[in-house]
Formats: sequence, structure tokens, C-alpha cells
Amino acid sequence: MNLSSQADESVDVLVIGGGPGGTPAALALAQAGRRVLLVEQGDGLGGTCLFEGCIPSKIFRESALRLHAADRAGEFGVGFDAAMKPAIDWQRVLARKRDILAARAAAALHNAQALPTLQIVRGHARLLGAHRAEISLPGAAPRGLRFAHAILAAGAQAAQPALVGSDLAGVHASEQLLSLDRVPDSLLLVGGGPIGVEMAQIFCLLGSRVTLLQGRERILPSMDGDLALQLQQRLQDSGIDLRCGARAQSIVAVPGGLRVTYSDAQGNGGQVEAQHVGLALGRVPRVADLGLEHTRIRHDGKGLRVDAHLQTDEPDVYAVGDLLGQPMFAHWATAQAQALAAHLLGKPAAFPKPEHNSAVIFSHPEFATAGLTVAQAQAAGLIVDTATYDYAIDARAQIGGETGLLRLVFERDSRRIVGVHALIEGASDLIGEGALIVRHGLTLEQLAQAIHPHPTLTESMGVLARQTLARLQGLATHAHHPVP
Amino acid sequence: MNLSSQADESVDVLVIGGGPGGTPAALALAQAGRRVLLVEQGDGLGGTCLFEGCIPSKIFRESALRLHAADRAGEFGVGFDAAMKPAIDWQRVLARKRDILAARAAAALHNAQALPTLQIVRGHARLLGAHRAEISLPGAAPRGLRFAHAILAAGAQAAQPALVGSDLAGVHASEQLLSLDRVPDSLLLVGGGPIGVEMAQIFCLLGSRVTLLQGRERILPSMDGDLALQLQQRLQDSGIDLRCGARAQSIVAVPGGLRVTYSDAQGNGGQVEAQHVGLALGRVPRVADLGLEHTRIRHDGKGLRVDAHLQTDEPDVYAVGDLLGQPMFAHWATAQAQALAAHLLGKPAAFPKPEHNSAVIFSHPEFATAGLTVAQAQAAGLIVDTATYDYAIDARAQIGGETGLLRLVFERDSRRIVGVHALIEGASDLIGEGALIVRHGLTLEQLAQAIHPHPTLTESMGVLARQTLARLQGLATHAHHPVP
Repeated sequence: MNLSSQADESVDVLVIGGGPGGTPAALALAQAGRRVLLVEQGDGLGGTCLFEGCIPSKIFRESALRLHAADRAGEFGVGFDAAMKPAIDWQRVLARKRDILAARAAAALHNAQALPTLQIVRGHARLLGAHRAEISLPGAAPRGLRFAHAILAAGAQAAQPALVGSDLAGVHASEQLLSLDRVPDSLLLVGGGPIGVEMAQIFCLLGSRVTLLQGRERILPSMDGDLALQLQQRLQDSGIDLRCGARAQSIVAVPGGLRVTYSDAQGNGGQVEAQHVGLALGRVPRVADLGLEHTRIRHDGKGLRVDAHLQTDEPDVYAVGDLLGQPMFAHWATAQAQALAAHLLGKPAAFPKPEHNSAVIFSHPEFATAGLTVAQAQAAGLIVDTATYDYAIDARAQIGGETGLLRLVFERDSRRIVGVHALIEGASDLIGEGALIVRHGLTLEQLAQAIHPHPTLTESMGVLARQTLARLQGLATHAHHPVP
Repeated sequence: MNLSSQADESVDVLVIGGGPGGTPAALALAQAGRRVLLVEQGDGLGGTCLFEGCIPSKIFRESALRLHAADRAGEFGVGFDAAMKPAIDWQRVLARKRDILAARAAAALHNAQALPTLQIVRGHARLLGAHRAEISLPGAAPRGLRFAHAILAAGAQAAQPALVGSDLAGVHASEQLLSLDRVPDSLLLVGGGPIGVEMAQIFCLLGSRVTLLQGRERILPSMDGDLALQLQQRLQDSGIDLRCGARAQSIVAVPGGLRVTYSDAQGNGGQVEAQHVGLALGRVPRVADLGLEHTRIRHDGKGLRVDAHLQTDEPDVYAVGDLLGQPMFAHWATAQAQALAAHLLGKPAAFPKPEHNSAVIFSHPEFATAGLTVAQAQAAGLIVDTATYDYAIDARAQIGGETGLLRLVFERDSRRIVGVHALIEGASDLIGEGALIVRHGLTLEQLAQAIHPHPTLTESMGVLARQTLARLQGLATHAHHPVP
């Protein structure tokens, strides 16, 4: 496509945003022969997840955990000279981050360029009305474009807090913390959701003195409560100064750093000083500059309104991913994009349902979830019961020196499992089984029948299912693992 | 039960062997009120798995991997002084092993003792004929016992090789390697099955110079070939001197160690010297001293003959676990024991099927399998196709610095997945999903529909299913992960 010709160009599909929502949609449609223009305003394909979110934070976490593992090595009979404590080489971590990001972005671009009907441009796209948009590329005048369908996948951005002093030097949005030029001596994080918890633990393991202010009564309010409270205790045991029910009010500069004033529900409060402050107060859909005002598209502060096929109020304009509000996860955006591409190609499309979603909080230990918590299940009108496995009795967890909990949420009558929640290092891989269970509505009996290998963390799934069935049958059950 | 009274005592169920087969059978039957006598000749409940096999080897592996991680830490920006290389504290590893084993054995005994109709004795049991046995306890005369049912769960022992010199000092059965008083300078392992491979890597990581002699043409002949060959390359790259097609012929003592002479298929051969030699030539059912000659029970060198309900040729005498021959896995024995207990209690019992089994070889990286390999599927008359995912493109694997392969084996027409094979550190946890898939005959479509979280190793399962479906539909597909 040549955007420099006089008459408006036309494409089958305009995709705005090259993250985990827009990119797979564009690839799937171009693979089927559709002429697709993908407009991405950033440096490459990958979006928030690759450049600012999940991937860089996991790279830092990997190094932080390896530093921590070196500290714990003596427990496993691996000895260091005490005077030669391992240290983090921050520049090397930053270089590793750059290398992995560049390789993944290049691979994504390479795949995209193999498709002759897909064009990718760096620039900005704005809707002008029904089936019309304007494309602005750097150093060129805006050009008109006609499209048969458009997919909005512009993502989200950090919420701007109503917090006096949030524009001071040393106050960072969470993603900026991953680009600091050194590990802070002290760091105050505002917000005890997934990002705040991940960052608090990473910087604590890297050696920062960390304070975490959480406005709600506990961390991770949307996650299973008992597992979240066990994780909360782990944060505190590791030396993080966690203050729950504490809402940040203002930030002022003080010598050597910043001072944050907060209040609590009782009208009391306090102050904390730190070298740096990180804000992790959630993310909001990036609705500005999309030209929505020229269309019938409706949205509120939480996201664009769409129908069951992800079509907005403007016919033939669809949206996926963070632009639709919660849940904001890369894999959720990808699942939507794949279903939408199939739908636009006239093929059977199973649009993903929130009750089948999964997620991992890369805390330490990992906290993974698939399906519904008890609260979510009850809100959906289900009568549920729970079963819990304590990894303290688990062979693999004992060998690895790990602890945690596994919880199943199941319908009382049908014994259909509607939620799987795991807090244990390795939960990110265990939860694939959970995602399969909740997607296909498998029962405790069906889980109990699978032969899980010993000694692994995954056998906890089968053991818990069998123990729970024995309990429901009124048999006394032994808490210990049946494989000694 | 008082074994010292004059008349023969009687029990509902005699269980011979307190490992992962006998123990859960005894617990389940006693929980239901049956009077059970469990006779174990060893120190406590747990069998080969706990005392000599899976658990101690995994404890050593954990320490070996942590030493290896310290060596690799610089790659992740975790710096050590080069002169202060970490070292293994062997006595601490041995102490950790003792602690974990003792805790697990005590927990198993504690559970068992909570059941009033279960008696556990340390001693020896031998069948005398139909419904009769003889129990020998240390320091007491043998006593008669009558039983309504018996469950034989005596396990297996290391195969005695036809190898001149295998009784020399410094030649060890594989399980004895875990009790050496120091890490050998050099170690020669005979046998490239699961135990030989695990031991070769553990001692290589711990600093031994390791040679591995494998009689067959590659390591792990029963596992997926491509994955086994990738692992074989990893062994060689790590410095293990692997010699395939090499059958050990004789061992002689030489100054400072032992010399092993081997031959190959071409009639050539060679010699290797090492400080210690470990034999990992498989395991054989422990059929001696069970009194089988007083019964109608039949067996060959591979194991006892049983029917579909695990009943031997002697009515009311059943057998589970390693005594039945391959597969010899703790979880397989437990699955058999649970089904058998249900069957004896008159409840519906789903006896486990080999095509639903799973297993993990704790190589580095872990090698896990559920269901059938291509060769096994073809031998069963299935028309299958395969799909392979290379973790080189995987975000989580890149972050963790790991590589490996995932392979799905599926029926060509139905797209039912009959085998899942993973070679990647973390495969032991991924394979729970595989076990569930093969147990319930899920299809590629059903796997593709599950929403796996990003960035995790488990999303490889969904990505591979979707890529394979696209390929089967004739669409060009991009090899890269759809979530950039």
C-alpha cells in the first residue's frame, strides 16, 4: 500500500495498536489473505506487555530470584564464603532486558513481514467516521484511509492519580521503575495490586528498603483471600513494610528523597520517606486521540462498550484488549483477537468468557488463578464449596524448600470445578491444568482420575481432588500425601 | 492384633510391603473399617521411592541444580567474586536428605496410627497357601495368620548384572550412590535409562568427571526420540562422556579405582577408568521369599501375572506396583492401590490404564511424558500425527534462560491427543495438564480453547494446539508466539 497517493487508500482491515491484541488479529487476518494495515505508535510490535509490562518485569524478577537463591544456597548445602556476598550487576540486567525485548520484537516483525497483505507502519491512526480514518506518519501530512473493518487495540496506560506531588522528580509510574539507572536504596510503592506487589518483592530482593501502601484492607483484593493473606505474610516476613488501609494523600520533596503522607479509614495516617516513589494505581483504557468523537462508539472510564462479538456501537469497528477495561491481560487480549479474527473470516468463533480466564501474579511465590474465586462464584449465583491443599506436606515442595496453598472451588451439587487458585513457586505452570479444567467444566471425579506423576507439584491437584471426594463421601481422610 | 497368641490370628486384609503401593491400599481399607495388617521389612513406610529412589535423588538434584545456578548466575546479572567459586557441602546435603526422609516417614506413620483397625509391623510375611501366611518379627518365632484378602506390594530391587567384577569395592547399585561419603572425583555409570541419566547429570553438576555407558543406540529408549536426542546433546555439551551402543563386560580394580571394559555392536570396544562405578541396569520384581511356591501365583522374570482387577492366579490374593513389572513408578503403584481398595470395598473402581500414565525423568532439563509416544501409539494401531513447539521462541523460557521441546501426539482423524511430551525445566509441573488431557481424551480444539496465561511455559500447550489446527486447515502459520 502506498500512503502517499492522492486518493484515499482502502484496506480490508485497519488495526490500531500492535500489542498482544492487535498483532495476532492482524496476523490471522492477513494469513487468510485480507489486506491489513497495522498502525503502531511505538517502537515495534509487542505493546505494553513486551516493552513496559509482563516481559521486562519478569526479566528483573528472574535476576532478583537468582540473587535470592544465592542467599538461600547454604540451606541446600551450596556454600559461599560469607564475606563474598553476591551482588546485582544492574547494568547487566538492563542489557539482558534490552536483548530479550529486541529479539522478541524482531521475531514478531519478521513473522509479520512474511505476510504479503499485511503492512505495518509506525504512526498514529484516528477514526474520522464510518469506515474512514486518518493516518499520520512522522514527517508526513496526515492521509485518509477507507476500511471495511477496523479493530481498535490501543491498550491502556497508567492511571493518573489524584495525588499532590505525583509529578515530582523521583516519582515514577510502575513501568518506569524498570528503567532506573540503579537499584534504589529505598522505594515506596503506592498500590497493592498485582503490579505493586510484584515490584515490591523484586526491589526488596534486590536490596531496596521497601514500603508498600495499599488503600484496601489487604493486598490483591480480587484474588482468593486466604492465599492472598498467606502471601501478605510472606511480604512482611521478607522485610517489606506493608501498610494496608493506607491511602496516599500527597508527596513532597525532602532532602535525599520524597515524603509521602497517607490517611487511613479511621482518619489517622502517617508519613513515610523514601528515595523513590513508584505509583501502581491501576491502568485506564487509552481512549484519547482515537477519534472516537467522530463515531457512535460509546465508552465510560472503564472501557469501550462492545457487544458479544466485540463490536463497538459503530458498525464494523471492533475492539479488543485493555481498551475494553478489566481484565487487562496479554493472553486475554490475544484470546479475544483470535476469536475476533475467526469471526471476521466467517468461521466459528468462541469468544473467551471471563469465567474461563486465567492469570498469574508473579509474586514470590507465584500466585496463579483460573476461573472464579468463591466470591466471584457466589456473585454468579453458584452454590460452591472449597478444598485446600497445604504444600507443607508436599514432597516436591519440601525438596525445593517452598511452601504455599492450592485451592479448588467447585459447585456443591455437580462437583464441577469452577476455580483453581495456587500460591506456590511454579504455580504459573501448574495453572495450565486449571485453565483446562475450568474451560471444560471438569469435575472433582475427572480430576481425581488423571494419573499425576510423583514427586511433582502437579500431583497436588489429583491428591486434593481425591481427598475432597473422600470427605464428601463421609470417610475420614488422612491429611498426608498418600504417596509416602 | 496380638501376634503372640497361640491360635492363628485372622485379618480382613494382609498387605505385604509399605511403599507407595501397599501403604495407600492399607490406609484406604482401614479407613473403611477393614482390619488390616501391613507388614513392612524396612525402617518405615515409604518404600523404594522414599528411602532409595525418587525422593533422595531429587534432594541431591536440588542441591546440584542450585550449585549449577550459582555457576550461571552471572548471565542474569548476579555477580560473584570469581575466586570464590561456590562449593558443595556434602555432609549438609546428606543431613538434609535424612531430615526430609525422616519427616515424611514420620508423617506417614502418624497418619497410619490414627486408624484403629490398621496394624503395622516391621518384619517379614510369607504366603503359606490359600488365605494363610506366616509372619516373622525380629526375635520372635514365626506365627500363622489367616486373611480374607492379601495385597502383595513387595516392590522391586536393582537387577543383578551378568558383569564380571560387579561385586568389587567401589561398584555401587544406583541407590547406594546417594549414600557415598563424598562426591567422587570420577564416576562411571552403566545404563542410560532414567536412573542412569539422572545420576550422570547430578554428579556431573556436583563436579565429578562422569562417563555414561549405554548399551542401546541412544539414552532413554522408551521416551520420545527427538526429545531424548536433544537431551542427549545436552548431556554431552555439559561434559558427560556418553558412549552409546557400549555394553559393559567386566570390571577390574586398578590403582585409584576401577577399569570397565565394554564392547559395542561392531565387536569393538574400549576401556574406561573411574574412581567409582554405578550400576543402573533396571529393576526386577522382588518375588523371592513371598512364599509364592505355596500358591497358584504365576510370574515370569518381568512380574506377577494378574487379571484386570489385579488379582493373581491365587484367588483373593492381589498385587500392585513394581511387583507387576513395568511401568515401575510410585504414582502408578498408588493409582493401582487406590483402585484396588475401592474394588475390594465393593465400590466402582477405575483401574489405571498404561496409556493414561505419566512420568517424569528428573534430568536437566526435566523430561516429562503423559500417554503414548508415536511408537507406542502406532503399536496400538492408532494413526497419529505430531506437533512440536520449540521453547527457543517462548517468552518464559527466554527469561529463565532455558531451552527445550514440547511434542503433542494426536490421532489424525479425531485430533484426540494421545501423548504429551515435554523436555524443559518445569516439565514436571506442565505435565499435569498432559495427564488430564490423555486421561479424558481431549482434542486439539479443546486444548486450544483453554486460556493459558502469559508469560508462562504452559501457554506453549495452547499455542501449539492453535498452530497445529491452523496447519491442518491449510493456513500458512507463523512459527512465532502470537503474544509478542
